[in-house]
Amino acid sequence: MHTPARRPTLQSYNRPNLEKEPMMSDVDVVVVGAGLAGLTAARELRAAGRRVRVLEARDRVAGRTLGGSVAGGVPVELGGQWIGTTQTEILALVAELGLETFPTHDAGDALTRYRGTVTRYGDETFGLSGAAALEAGRLQAELEALAATVSLAAPWTTPAAAELDRRTLDEWLRANTDDAEALAFWGAVVPALFSAEPAELSLLHFLFYIKSAGTLDILVGVTGGAQELRVVGGTHRISERLAEDLGEEVVLGAPVRSIAHDDAGVTVTHAGGSVTAEAVIVTVPPTLAGRLEYRPALPAARDGLTQQMPMGSVIKVQVAYPTPFWRAAGLSGFAFDLDGALGVTLDNSPPDGSCGVLVGFFEGAHARIAGTRTPAERRAVAVATLVDLFGPQAAEPMDYAEQDWTAEEYTRGCYGGRLGAGVWTQFGAALSEPVGRIHWAGAETADVWNGYMNGAVRSGRRAAAEVLGRLGR
Amino acid sequence: MHTPARRPTLQSYNRPNLEKEPMMSDVDVVVVGAGLAGLTAARELRAAGRRVRVLEARDRVAGRTLGGSVAGGVPVELGGQWIGTTQTEILALVAELGLETFPTHDAGDALTRYRGTVTRYGDETFGLSGAAALEAGRLQAELEALAATVSLAAPWTTPAAAELDRRTLDEWLRANTDDAEALAFWGAVVPALFSAEPAELSLLHFLFYIKSAGTLDILVGVTGGAQELRVVGGTHRISERLAEDLGEEVVLGAPVRSIAHDDAGVTVTHAGGSVTAEAVIVTVPPTLAGRLEYRPALPAARDGLTQQMPMGSVIKVQVAYPTPFWRAAGLSGFAFDLDGALGVTLDNSPPDGSCGVLVGFFEGAHARIAGTRTPAERRAVAVATLVDLFGPQAAEPMDYAEQDWTAEEYTRGCYGGRLGAGVWTQFGAALSEPVGRIHWAGAETADVWNGYMNGAVRSGRRAAAEVLGRLGR
Repeated sequence: MHTPARRPTLQSYNRPNLEKEPMMSDVDVVVVGAGLAGLTAARELRAAGRRVRVLEARDRVAGRTLGGSVAGGVPVELGGQWIGTTQTEILALVAELGLETFPTHDAGDALTRYRGTVTRYGDETFGLSGAAALEAGRLQAELEALAATVSLAAPWTTPAAAELDRRTLDEWLRANTDDAEALAFWGAVVPALFSAEPAELSLLHFLFYIKSAGTLDILVGVTGGAQELRVVGGTHRISERLAEDLGEEVVLGAPVRSIAHDDAGVTVTHAGGSVTAEAVIVTVPPTLAGRLEYRPALPAARDGLTQQMPMGSVIKVQVAYPTPFWRAAGLSGFAFDLDGALGVTLDNSPPDGSCGVLVGFFEGAHARIAGTRTPAERRAVAVATLVDLFGPQAAEPMDYAEQDWTAEEYTRGCYGGRLGAGVWTQFGAALSEPVGRIHWAGAETADVWNGYMNGAVRSGRRAAAEVLGRLGR
Repeated sequence: MHTPARRPTLQSYNRPNLEKEPMMSDVDVVVVGAGLAGLTAARELRAAGRRVRVLEARDRVAGRTLGGSVAGGVPVELGGQWIGTTQTEILALVAELGLETFPTHDAGDALTRYRGTVTRYGDETFGLSGAAALEAGRLQAELEALAATVSLAAPWTTPAAAELDRRTLDEWLRANTDDAEALAFWGAVVPALFSAEPAELSLLHFLFYIKSAGTLDILVGVTGGAQELRVVGGTHRISERLAEDLGEEVVLGAPVRSIAHDDAGVTVTHAGGSVTAEAVIVTVPPTLAGRLEYRPALPAARDGLTQQMPMGSVIKVQVAYPTPFWRAAGLSGFAFDLDGALGVTLDNSPPDGSCGVLVGFFEGAHARIAGTRTPAERRAVAVATLVDLFGPQAAEPMDYAEQDWTAEEYTRGCYGGRLGAGVWTQFGAALSEPVGRIHWAGAETADVWNGYMNGAVRSGRRAAAEVLGRLGR
């Protein structure tokens, strides 16, 4: 597989100006994965004068962002869709690429259903009873205070890392409150962020994630938060524009099988051939990166990490109506359902409001159950929930679209990879540490806005900078 | 990759006596992995008149059992080695294959080091102080009582499954005792069983494992327990004899890359070619099974399981001396070190006592650190520990051998796969449920003696029975 005879000798690497040397590698850098991380890395490398090849398993770019439509052509995002105003890197990239944003519809009251009662609210209570709202807020303040102690660059070096990583978020929540309503609220918020249950998360991982985004209010919020803006036409257009600029160096339908590397270089073999380079940046999520073959085999720490950073479970559904009727009733479309399977709902109508779209999510445990049902069954559950929340007008949608990310072979879950109890402190250092000529990127490896499009962009830039340093900028 | 044109039509399967039909598949069943599970399955299938092919990635059989030697030819097991007297299936198989067992040396006192003090004991205290011994025993009794409630066939249906699976073993232990010494003891026992830390285990998984083996005393014990017997020449000889019987149908050096299956049959592609069959039994641990390519892609539940059943971390070391000198001092060789990196030690001398061998284990967190050290550094740590425990005679070993199972590409950790908090209840049903023509075996899928050689044998028989049922016995 690896063909060292075709590779430059070790000596050639010692010369100061590689760009002017005739190279025998096909390209300077191979990038595995044409999502935001990979395309950003490729863009940076090319801007620095490097030859780059992006290998993408699917027949499309954009990874966990994906365009779709409802109601005969209204664009909706089947994957990641929101951008927060503090997500500076992705916002700048969107502007640089000539794309436009518009605000997520957020005017009006929100709803929360708990034990059969739907509560409408326009304040900071999240529709909880007074006592539960106070308790949920107290827990939030305690979590924020703990999050402030976490090292973003190296969470395993956080002063109390061992104590924080030993506990699950579930255990921490139950140890810190007896309020069933507050627990139910957190039991909906956590899957809304991770597509996983509180028991599946290390407390340290949750705290890291809070600090990575800023605050819990920013994570959960629409206006002023991570859900504030949308991209006209859909977020997948960001990747499409990046890929257009890269042109033929983005190869679709080329699932990577193996990566061989040694002193002389790297050979990346995909379904349709192989590419030699000086370095490779692997941007697919760790669990998928673990499924590639490596020569030599990965060190135990890196391999061990890939064994235990599972992806979240989410099925995203879009329900379209002739009008955004809930707006007329003074509702924003934002809802938490603490009782049912469709945990969170938002207004996802097009910017001109020409029709109404509600987007909802089956997440975590609910997604694992919903994934065993038919689309028609999921639609029935979603519509019934929307009727309970928004009234009888929700009963007759004109269209329905869904995307089960757990079924996608080349993603295998969204929103991203998570770490359960004990993993950060045992394996965390391997998350982004290069292995020989292999560098790692992707939203899971980001320090700031980990798990988000902004984190993907940051990670791509960080990995590109690592590789440029290696090559001799 | 898949070549349906060569496969029998669907209609042919409806005929009652397949054996007498001319088949176009290369064999009836492909088995992936030539460890105890795979070889047992193949043996059963062949005994039932089926044509079987076993594909093994390595250039040897026997999986997580492996023969080695110290001191110029004294056989030692570098992998799984002990058999308990209640492990009826593996014992019967050993006898059937004409192999012999001998008792692990267990006469004499055992040792426990805690906070710098080495305590010698011959009773049930495990060398703990009175209060800690009582506390450790009370915790054991409570765990046994909880374990009695677990369903072995379907742990996720255990009455309190949600509550038990939400908690980590670490959290349960800390919630149930404040005794630091008792906690330190359990902090050594748990890695000795799982090569993982208590925080990395779901309480439900630990309880399942206890019930699967019988009791904690059986799991931990030598005489009367899971460490009672050894196999003359080493346990790898079991697999070698099974493979000899199967002859040329065991193909070494054939790492499987992909499995395609449809109504017509299955095609298993390995590094050197492909084999068509009616069914396939995959016996490699779930995390490795997840690294194969499947067509169609695996259902989300099965894939999700493979994302989060990581292997334990263990480096097994053997230290050889001219004589088993500790026996003369009335010591059994059994020791728990609650302070150091080499958590547990046993007498591993040959049956004739012609030299002395102590076997020790770096497990869990200790293995992850030790894995970053050189063999010489690990040897120094091991010998220093043995000196602390067994005295100055341990300072000058005549040989040292070690096996880092986390570095083995085709195992990636021992003793086996574990489930952290939340996984049994969310993904457990996918552990052994067939997917189309794909059946699953391996020690991780066993009901009784899960994780042990006995469980591997049972799982191979169970999967063979499933396949025979499919084929029409």
